[in-house]
Amino acid sequence: MKILDNGYVRLILKYGSDQDVIEDARMSTDKGFLGWENDLRLLNFLYANRHMTPFEGSGMKIEIKAPIMVFREWHRHRTQSYNEMSGRYTEIPDEHYVPSVERIIDAAIQAAASKNKQQTATHAPEIINVAWAEAVRSQIIYVQKRQQESYQDLLKSGVPKELARINMPLSRYSKMRATANLRNWIAFLTLREDASAQWEIRQYARAVAGLIGEHFPKTWGLYVESK
Amino acid sequence: MKILDNGYVRLILKYGSDQDVIEDARMSTDKGFLGWENDLRLLNFLYANRHMTPFEGSGMKIEIKAPIMVFREWHRHRTQSYNEMSGRYTEIPDEHYVPSVERIIDAAIQAAASKNKQQTATHAPEIINVAWAEAVRSQIIYVQKRQQESYQDLLKSGVPKELARINMPLSRYSKMRATANLRNWIAFLTLREDASAQWEIRQYARAVAGLIGEHFPKTWGLYVESK
Amino acid sequence: MKILDNGYVRLILKYGSDQDVIEDARMSTDKGFLGWENDLRLLNFLYANRHMTPFEGSGMKIEIKAPIMVFREWHRHRTQSYNEMSGRYTEIPDEHYVPSVERIIDAAIQAAASKNKQQTATHAPEIINVAWAEAVRSQIIYVQKRQQESYQDLLKSGVPKELARINMPLSRYSKMRATANLRNWIAFLTLREDASAQWEIRQYARAVAGLIGEHFPKTWGLYVESK
Amino acid sequence: MKILDNGYVRLILKYGSDQDVIEDARMSTDKGFLGWENDLRLLNFLYANRHMTPFEGSGMKIEIKAPIMVFREWHRHRTQSYNEMSGRYTEIPDEHYVPSVERIIDAAIQAAASKNKQQTATHAPEIINVAWAEAVRSQIIYVQKRQQESYQDLLKSGVPKELARINMPLSRYSKMRATANLRNWIAFLTLREDASAQWEIRQYARAVAGLIGEHFPKTWGLYVESK
Repeated sequence: MKILDNGYVRLILKYGSDQDVIEDARMSTDKGFLGWENDLRLLNFLYANRHMTPFEGSGMKIEIKAPIMVFREWHRHRTQSYNEMSGRYTEIPDEHYVPSVERIIDAAIQAAASKNKQQTATHAPEIINVAWAEAVRSQIIYVQKRQQESYQDLLKSGVPKELARINMPLSRYSKMRATANLRNWIAFLTLREDASAQWEIRQYARAVAGLIGEHFPKTWGLYVESK
Repeated sequence: MKILDNGYVRLILKYGSDQDVIEDARMSTDKGFLGWENDLRLLNFLYANRHMTPFEGSGMKIEIKAPIMVFREWHRHRTQSYNEMSGRYTEIPDEHYVPSVERIIDAAIQAAASKNKQQTATHAPEIINVAWAEAVRSQIIYVQKRQQESYQDLLKSGVPKELARINMPLSRYSKMRATANLRNWIAFLTLREDASAQWEIRQYARAVAGLIGEHFPKTWGLYVESK
Repeated sequence: MKILDNGYVRLILKYGSDQDVIEDARMSTDKGFLGWENDLRLLNFLYANRHMTPFEGSGMKIEIKAPIMVFREWHRHRTQSYNEMSGRYTEIPDEHYVPSVERIIDAAIQAAASKNKQQTATHAPEIINVAWAEAVRSQIIYVQKRQQESYQDLLKSGVPKELARINMPLSRYSKMRATANLRNWIAFLTLREDASAQWEIRQYARAVAGLIGEHFPKTWGLYVESK
Repeated sequence: MKILDNGYVRLILKYGSDQDVIEDARMSTDKGFLGWENDLRLLNFLYANRHMTPFEGSGMKIEIKAPIMVFREWHRHRTQSYNEMSGRYTEIPDEHYVPSVERIIDAAIQAAASKNKQQTATHAPEIINVAWAEAVRSQIIYVQKRQQESYQDLLKSGVPKELARINMPLSRYSKMRATANLRNWIAFLTLREDASAQWEIRQYARAVAGLIGEHFPKTWGLYVESK
């Protein structure tokens, strides 16, 4: 599943299922799964009343390639388990995120329109056009190239990896695996698919949502309804 | 796997494997599993140096039938996910733990010998014999029967389950499912297989250890060596 | 703060304050507390939009005396830190919870009226009266006394504490300390002040709510509004 | 407490104390603090036998200014609560970490000497001298300046903060507050004061250790002994 210009999300493993959620919940009354005709109501009840422990017995491990800026936000979710590529141990490949013309224009228009203090807007919307966005892209790429040349220079001159990397930009792609149970994936989606989340991590959240939809369709249905 | 007089531990699902631990760890250098000839050393290194996140991408869900007294200790492990039978929602079956003659004698001898403040010892070891232990068992069973009769009486007289259960003894069997990743199962074993843990939960820890040994033999080997 | 017949909740320490929540939140823009005229809006915004990390830098430690049945529910909250009295190390005092006549009648009426499967109701409401409830209380007390006599007998006969206690009823009072941050106390209240929680733990949740109201009045206000 | 070239660690609040650790531990036997003549042995016993919950009822909140590269490692500790400055909401000040001449030389000598795969070493130690290290510093500073010029250009041209920041280097200083209990601060120190941790985060761990030593001297003593 391609995301942004060089990123992806892919499933490594899943465990449990929608039916397992029911079976775990039924421990309370010492019964098992009875069939979806009845048990969809139970699933609904659990979700609506925040009885979330039955959603902790199933889950997924995924592999993600994303810019460091996205991982910075992602790692704030402390209920997932992470294993990430390390710039101390390996040379980080020369790949960066460059926002598309559309993304740059959308962001600038929103910022110009908004009184929201999160964003600056010193230019009128008429200046925000494709040529301008292309120029922004060129400048972003230029800085990424200079940084990469310097990284290579420092490594060649004998500076160890752990110091040579210190000017690596937040747009640099890294890779990691993240494992979480269904409850915590849903919590991740709730915050990161939200319109207030930064656009870049929302693209990843959408991909995770796609995997939940594929492997846990009934739980997924409840999440979508409750949004 | 039968445990104590009426308990058990059984595997519901496992996810990941020893090889997955290596693959998750290799995210740091962007490589995968290379074969156990080399990678057993890596597994050793991770474990010995407490790089434990690669052990969080694999795990097990198990079902446990145990006396409430064992669950009271078990639930102190806050990194597992639990779904337990509920006395509010269902009538708890009439099954209790009665310590065996051997267990009673061993405990009493240890207590008599010990200066350990954890245990009282008002009797000399010569009084601690099979007849005495049988008498202890009879008394334990007697109280359990009286309690069960009262539970049934209260239910029949119209007292709701959630109040009728309040005198249920800690020896009563309950059931639950517990899910945890490999790192946290190892942490559980480290504390609950220890000689300082109460004998009853140690029997359950041993059963969990058996499942780890079967499904994650190489990680299990490291745990055993490090004890 | 007296709760049930023999229980209590008391504050051991609190750290942080409503103002600290603002100061922690203002790290994001490198500013501090500006005064409640403006900052009450920020507090509102954080709470409404689930930006909960600023509520993790303040908290409380409390001491609780409650029946084991209440602690069984309480310990399912895995984000608190617990230290509880131990029946392995000390003789548990002879104190039990006996539901009041009002509680028994209310519970029985609710159960009789309800189609809810959580509760049995074999008797018609006309039988549920004060005399009946007094009889229920007597029976509960009777079983508690028999259990206590047996506990003492077993201890005297040389059975160590850790085994002598196994028939202790769930109505027995125990004591513990619980520490959590403000975010997690709010989560506790959300689940345990809810009408679906068992009446007994709701009394404790109400006492915790009182402490939050006293020491974090503005956060408390948001919680009350959002209910 | 100044750390690296522009960083610091400062205490915001502490709660609890060494004595509170004892009082929380004594819940198990329903006793309190008895005086350090006896209770130092108890503290020792708790620590040595990993009875760590009594260390969860005390803690500290600190404020940290550090390069993003240090925060990247710090945030992997999932038992702390974080509030960090946000490049979406505020313009990040123009401050960067530049390793000192000594740090660069030490790192390069270690790397040259080491067969450790974590580090590259293409140059012989004779080339690693002060003039060389000054040149490395100049290059690092040069890239930081170019990046900052570009950041300002992008902001001025109407690119919103959340996109203008994407090439910010990992050497940029950020600020955050971190709250944790004593148990988890000790776990942080155990991993981050270790010789295998990167030198930069070790400087911060040393400062945290200083605060623990000042405010929890007896617990600190046990940590130092166990190293």
